[in-house]
Amino acid sequence: LVSGISKNKIKFIRSLHKKKYRDENRLFMIEGVKMIQEALRDRNDLIQEIYTTDPNVFEDVQKERIHVISAKELEQISALKTPQKALAILAYKKDNEVDTNGIILALDGIQDPGNFGTILRTAEWFGIQTIICSEDTVDQYNPKCVQASMGSMLRLTISYKALAPFIESYANPVYGTLLSGNDCYKEDITENGIIVMGNEGNGISDAILPLINKPLLIPGSGKTESLNVSIATGIILSEFKRRRLL
Amino acid sequence: LVSGISKNKIKFIRSLHKKKYRDENRLFMIEGVKMIQEALRDRNDLIQEIYTTDPNVFEDVQKERIHVISAKELEQISALKTPQKALAILAYKKDNEVDTNGIILALDGIQDPGNFGTILRTAEWFGIQTIICSEDTVDQYNPKCVQASMGSMLRLTISYKALAPFIESYANPVYGTLLSGNDCYKEDITENGIIVMGNEGNGISDAILPLINKPLLIPGSGKTESLNVSIATGIILSEFKRRRLL
Repeated sequence: LVSGISKNKIKFIRSLHKKKYRDENRLFMIEGVKMIQEALRDRNDLIQEIYTTDPNVFEDVQKERIHVISAKELEQISALKTPQKALAILAYKKDNEVDTNGIILALDGIQDPGNFGTILRTAEWFGIQTIICSEDTVDQYNPKCVQASMGSMLRLTISYKALAPFIESYANPVYGTLLSGNDCYKEDITENGIIVMGNEGNGISDAILPLINKPLLIPGSGKTESLNVSIATGIILSEFKRRRLL
Repeated sequence: LVSGISKNKIKFIRSLHKKKYRDENRLFMIEGVKMIQEALRDRNDLIQEIYTTDPNVFEDVQKERIHVISAKELEQISALKTPQKALAILAYKKDNEVDTNGIILALDGIQDPGNFGTILRTAEWFGIQTIICSEDTVDQYNPKCVQASMGSMLRLTISYKALAPFIESYANPVYGTLLSGNDCYKEDITENGIIVMGNEGNGISDAILPLINKPLLIPGSGKTESLNVSIATGIILSEFKRRRLL
């Protein structure tokens, strides 16, 4: 066990709250005992250091990776309002080859880290492996994305790309939710393809819209104008699951 | 048009960020031009005052309700990180009689205001009118709930009650998502009833669990342990919609 944390290290970990410094160091942070234990199980290779107020919960981990710190120190490095006993520093995942078999989820400019993380968690629930993000989509290593994903970001292949050329080069159907789409409960969605989900305020971008060849609509009846994008993603993925594609 | 805002008024509006003072005054706030315009359309009766940096967008509103303030003043009264041009003070809705016909959504201890608001927005999309909340569910007038609901909270009947006695007195099926439930795509869900959604971390509470007589499961396949509660709600309501109950 390593005891305490230097001021410089506190400063360094705090810098990882920002994308610029994460990219520079190719390091990010995850928080909470449960998520760190999942990371130890699934992506032990990525974990560099664990900072915790309660080392007993990490009994099985090599002692030299565990740093015992005070609640006050944890507060200084945490990105959470209510820090959760432990924070770990992880290396960026390797960029995996994108597998174009199976269903791909494409995110076109999702901005809210909570929505983004929730979408990853939902995608993993339904067995999707591959997420393609437009270059203006929020960073997967953003602490709020990581937390909202409940660890799913560790296990998924998430790739940032110019979305239009990727979709143009793709042979299968391109699904997307549009107000002018066809009833998602009835439309034939039995072919593998890309499912595009658009930005919170503006929906699918102008460059991508003409590439959607299987537009889907989630039928609604109330006065509210739209569904939250993570809810819409959940409902559409559920429809693919129901038809046995996932 | 009224110009400016007093220090006391700033203090008063800030106090409405807290439930205690909202309940004392039976007043709450909503933010953003779009949401206020929706409120003017749907619940004009509730709107007391509008504070805005841009009075031109409220041209049709009686001038004495419009207070023109600076961006700095708006920042002082806003509950948002990025204030959005306007903030309105509204009176609490009247408690409507709960309509036990049709499908009722019951929330059992939802804590996160973002989840709560998103659930309201989703419920309204699918045509649900009545939401019953356990007494430990987050306050509907919490500024973050209001914003995440995108105005749906203004139009729905939302009632806080001891949930167990309410459900016990109810004759129709009681649906709820449980890991031991039946496949929600196949289970007969054609009868009107209550749909219970549980707390983010703990699920449906011990007092309510034995009252669920139609347990449902959303089939999943990944390593993630659960779905976010607002996503699960969206998927279950979508299934009721698909079977023509909503």
